Amino acid sequence: MIKIGIVGGTGYTGVELLRLLATHPQADLRVITSRAEAGRPVSDLYPNLRGHVDLAFSEPDGASLAGCDLVFFSTPNGTAMKLVPELLDAGVKVIDLAADFRIQDADLWSQWYGMAHDCPQLLAEAVYGLPELNRERIKTARLVANPGCYPTAAALGFLPLVEQGVIAPDSLVADCKSGVSGAGRGANAAMLMGEVGESFKAYGVAGHRHLPEIRQTLSWVSDQPIGLTFVPHLLPMIRGIHATLYGRLTADVDLQALFEQRYTDEPFVDVMPAGSHPETRSVRGVNTCRIAVHRPQGGDTVVVLSVIDNLTKGAAGQAVHNMNLMFGLAEDTGLGQVALLP
Amino acid sequence: MIKIGIVGGTGYTGVELLRLLATHPQADLRVITSRAEAGRPVSDLYPNLRGHVDLAFSEPDGASLAGCDLVFFSTPNGTAMKLVPELLDAGVKVIDLAADFRIQDADLWSQWYGMAHDCPQLLAEAVYGLPELNRERIKTARLVANPGCYPTAAALGFLPLVEQGVIAPDSLVADCKSGVSGAGRGANAAMLMGEVGESFKAYGVAGHRHLPEIRQTLSWVSDQPIGLTFVPHLLPMIRGIHATLYGRLTADVDLQALFEQRYTDEPFVDVMPAGSHPETRSVRGVNTCRIAVHRPQGGDTVVVLSVIDNLTKGAAGQAVHNMNLMFGLAEDTGLGQVALLP
Amino acid sequence: MIKIGIVGGTGYTGVELLRLLATHPQADLRVITSRAEAGRPVSDLYPNLRGHVDLAFSEPDGASLAGCDLVFFSTPNGTAMKLVPELLDAGVKVIDLAADFRIQDADLWSQWYGMAHDCPQLLAEAVYGLPELNRERIKTARLVANPGCYPTAAALGFLPLVEQGVIAPDSLVADCKSGVSGAGRGANAAMLMGEVGESFKAYGVAGHRHLPEIRQTLSWVSDQPIGLTFVPHLLPMIRGIHATLYGRLTADVDLQALFEQRYTDEPFVDVMPAGSHPETRSVRGVNTCRIAVHRPQGGDTVVVLSVIDNLTKGAAGQAVHNMNLMFGLAEDTGLGQVALLP
Amino acid sequence: MIKIGIVGGTGYTGVELLRLLATHPQADLRVITSRAEAGRPVSDLYPNLRGHVDLAFSEPDGASLAGCDLVFFSTPNGTAMKLVPELLDAGVKVIDLAADFRIQDADLWSQWYGMAHDCPQLLAEAVYGLPELNRERIKTARLVANPGCYPTAAALGFLPLVEQGVIAPDSLVADCKSGVSGAGRGANAAMLMGEVGESFKAYGVAGHRHLPEIRQTLSWVSDQPIGLTFVPHLLPMIRGIHATLYGRLTADVDLQALFEQRYTDEPFVDVMPAGSHPETRSVRGVNTCRIAVHRPQGGDTVVVLSVIDNLTKGAAGQAVHNMNLMFGLAEDTGLGQVALLP
Repeated sequence: MIKIGIVGGTGYTGVELLRLLATHPQADLRVITSRAEAGRPVSDLYPNLRGHVDLAFSEPDGASLAGCDLVFFSTPNGTAMKLVPELLDAGVKVIDLAADFRIQDADLWSQWYGMAHDCPQLLAEAVYGLPELNRERIKTARLVANPGCYPTAAALGFLPLVEQGVIAPDSLVADCKSGVSGAGRGANAAMLMGEVGESFKAYGVAGHRHLPEIRQTLSWVSDQPIGLTFVPHLLPMIRGIHATLYGRLTADVDLQALFEQRYTDEPFVDVMPAGSHPETRSVRGVNTCRIAVHRPQGGDTVVVLSVIDNLTKGAAGQAVHNMNLMFGLAEDTGLGQVALLP
Repeated sequence: MIKIGIVGGTGYTGVELLRLLATHPQADLRVITSRAEAGRPVSDLYPNLRGHVDLAFSEPDGASLAGCDLVFFSTPNGTAMKLVPELLDAGVKVIDLAADFRIQDADLWSQWYGMAHDCPQLLAEAVYGLPELNRERIKTARLVANPGCYPTAAALGFLPLVEQGVIAPDSLVADCKSGVSGAGRGANAAMLMGEVGESFKAYGVAGHRHLPEIRQTLSWVSDQPIGLTFVPHLLPMIRGIHATLYGRLTADVDLQALFEQRYTDEPFVDVMPAGSHPETRSVRGVNTCRIAVHRPQGGDTVVVLSVIDNLTKGAAGQAVHNMNLMFGLAEDTGLGQVALLP
Repeated sequence: MIKIGIVGGTGYTGVELLRLLATHPQADLRVITSRAEAGRPVSDLYPNLRGHVDLAFSEPDGASLAGCDLVFFSTPNGTAMKLVPELLDAGVKVIDLAADFRIQDADLWSQWYGMAHDCPQLLAEAVYGLPELNRERIKTARLVANPGCYPTAAALGFLPLVEQGVIAPDSLVADCKSGVSGAGRGANAAMLMGEVGESFKAYGVAGHRHLPEIRQTLSWVSDQPIGLTFVPHLLPMIRGIHATLYGRLTADVDLQALFEQRYTDEPFVDVMPAGSHPETRSVRGVNTCRIAVHRPQGGDTVVVLSVIDNLTKGAAGQAVHNMNLMFGLAEDTGLGQVALLP
Repeated sequence: MIKIGIVGGTGYTGVELLRLLATHPQADLRVITSRAEAGRPVSDLYPNLRGHVDLAFSEPDGASLAGCDLVFFSTPNGTAMKLVPELLDAGVKVIDLAADFRIQDADLWSQWYGMAHDCPQLLAEAVYGLPELNRERIKTARLVANPGCYPTAAALGFLPLVEQGVIAPDSLVADCKSGVSGAGRGANAAMLMGEVGESFKAYGVAGHRHLPEIRQTLSWVSDQPIGLTFVPHLLPMIRGIHATLYGRLTADVDLQALFEQRYTDEPFVDVMPAGSHPETRSVRGVNTCRIAVHRPQGGDTVVVLSVIDNLTKGAAGQAVHNMNLMFGLAEDTGLGQVALLP
């Protein structure tokens, strides 16, 4: 059994992580911290956990975390980087679900996240936790930076095309749509149901923090500079991300075969039959990314449709996948759920 | 392993049953029939089952069903009663998720369901599959009538009060609200999102088929006639039933203790702390009924709040619970999921 | 033209009031105050008002308000009572959309609202602004207490029955459901779409502020004490209230005729044909209350279904109706919209 | 007063048209036909019209339609083209809300709509009813082809850029999202709330009928061939379209000024301040298109955000605007509503 701590488990990625760990056969949840809710039973805040999780939130405490084999950070950006060095020194492995270790260039990170980085020395060691790209490095990592939700959906959709160099990498478009749970559980008038229900809008068109993250991932597999326009939108629903990705083809390839081959051994990427339109509900609550690739009217534009659950494959599920890799478990341990449909 | 057949698995209770059986360690799904979809892979109709269910729908076929240990009927009302006798004769156990065997009085059944009953001789044998009431009889049953969704939520909320005779049984009110999945997956303009989204209404106030079913259940545990007003409403959401139940107290009892004692050994009924307001999402996708009991301003009206997922505890989950009982498995086998929240 | 001021127009009742006044032929909107948003154009906060309202929010300022003919308070409870006396002294008429003047008993008000009342001397003068009950008094009122949303829906449904003494007034049940806009636009984690979308729950079962208000209204028309159980619920949608009302009949009357006669001259109450189930969407954005009355199975329980838009007939629309009455306009001036369906 | 007939008013564009005409000061609604609902009061099908529309649906009847000044067709594709010639001969003006006269090339139309065109001789005369493009021709038209919903949102967003030749017209992308009301009110399992609620997907990526319509409009204002990728998506909400449009800039222009100048005199196009993200709810129920234009990171990609209500500016509202133009009324007659928000 893996002794597990969670720092900051009161948000949506926290409760999703608890949901998955509660039925994970190798997870021994020892401590979950929250300053604001210290002393309160977890299942009081989240009644779905009644009968499944007996812990109460506790004050953050280095000693109890240091006794764990693995600590997940499910905190606001900027928190993990303050605590991670000490945990690593104590021999604890870390998966950060926030953004602190996602961008390898500390200056670029500061520019987008609006603060200095507290431990830039760890950025080179931190492994970007996209198993479909970094599986082997994750297996031996001490510190994994769990990818963002949009970046997971967008990267998995673009990777086969950019890796094979069959699209022009300088004019990519990622038109992405997310359910409201991506904005978290903090009190925020802008995310009231009265504000976001029955409506739809783009946001952050001028620049969103996930832009440099997607660009970085694609740059790793391209020998040319990546030019990307990323427009996120807010869906009037709770869970799910749909990335609609556009690129200009520079080679005449069998797109369906290209995607199927790229992901043939991947347990959590499902390339759907040609002509499909994946629905976000088909991955609700599971760690799967479903992808379809189209070439409308046989033209030179490729359209990739990529759907994930932003809280599962886009956050907590991918984190558990990374945990399985880091601890030598079968990759799908505890991740065998079937999506809830309808 | 239990060899399982499903008759009519294309609707919402069908896909929910498939979701639960796909991860049930003792379920060996052999056949699933549908005239309309014969030959089509199940996972083509329901992409959430891709990678979990490899079967295709097949034409209804007595021989293949007769080779099963258990057959679930997930068909429109009136279908199971035509096929069940022959299956029972072949030694197959049956759980009917439709209404054919729920009402023990064939005339009453005909009156509410608008057709004659094809095998009234089985009504006495059929066991009403509410485990919290009929556990021992279910264990030895050949034929189980799986309860309706509203009746499950309403009965579990009223049972402790009626059994103990602490409310006037002649003036009960059940104000119930259901998500739209309760209406099934048939093409029906009245259930379009454009019709039922962002709106709310009552329906069937003059009389709904679940009224006699609830009345029958409560009559079994009362020595006085049951007078019940049942008003169903349609919620602009997909899953979940909330029953708000009203009764006039005739005795001064500790309501909280009464409920806790009644359900103390029940694996799928969760009596919440005093003062709670259970949310339907706290049982989304799981087989649990969460209940809270109130006595507003200390008056003589008791208010019970009872929530279930109409497709799980209100249909397929309860059916799997019944299967576990009928085959001597631990009651919660395959039913250990945590509700999806948010 | 009526010179109009609005105090505190940033919430949902505020923007609804602005929507209605923007096309009201006799409304001359002069000032709208908000400390938090002072200086910001109203249409910047509410883009639906672009091209319709040119005002900016301003700091509260007694002088500019005193120059109005009418001031609406669309403020949190407890604000209007501080400012109203001075406005009345200046000859300004006032409609308070909050609760400050709804309860005539100052002690009872304090008990439910948790603060002392600042001007109890005005409670006797304040007219409860339910036109269907107090039309003549409203016409000459200086100060109108605009009713709450639940109380409007519940009172209109119960009034004909209680006035005529045909139900037992000691055991009424009001099972009410409201869209989320009733909770306002303040930052509140509990009202995030991630919390209230796709879910349903009761709240305030132990006691809700609208309980004494409904009881007071019914008491005015009954010679017996009112016993009422009121259970509010939260719907996963934005606008609309559905009150499902239960009473025990004590006389054999033609319920349909009773309701039709009671409301035959009312411009904003629509008694639907026998057997109807009014939908909240049928009154979306309009000042109408639609009502249907049922007697299930011919028993002695009467069930009334009453729907309003909580922001219109339940708040701003009724306020404009009251304004029309106070200023001698045709009652439906500016209130002729057709509900938005679908 | 304009004597008006509607053919086929039972769908969502029909009820929206009725809502707008019911309060239009110059509209005298004489006849509304529906074979399926003949004899049924319109307000029985659509309770929001109770008190506003007294007509009943009638059997289609050439004589009564021929007595009108104007007939709207709110029918499935392929119906209007059968009846229009005879109405024009009788001196009746026609606005077709379906697609029969939108595409000027009869062969192209047949290819996308799967049937031969019955009156290709009228295609040259029919005026494409986008007032922002064809105002003067509409004023004198006998037959107006009311634009599709996606084409309205997309064309208004692209027009300023294509007209001025500042983007490469061969690589346009229109990523469009629509509420479910765009699919109409026909019984269709795919549009059940249980299917489309809380989920999101693309559809018709291989080719959608609105693609040639958008391309045709842009071709009219471009001297180069239009290359367009159009991907429609289905939103889990009822009303609203959001078009996110992408183009590659070929000139360095002040985009904000370009859009403001293009639409400065347009009563129903609102160019929002620089940096805005229009929400679909800001146009709910009104005839306005709100547009914002962005140039992310100052690169060479322009992103236009364009929102309309698919039933209003995308259908019935634009039809009323066309009617106003055809009959010499002020353009905004009967179209002065404020969007319903929240």
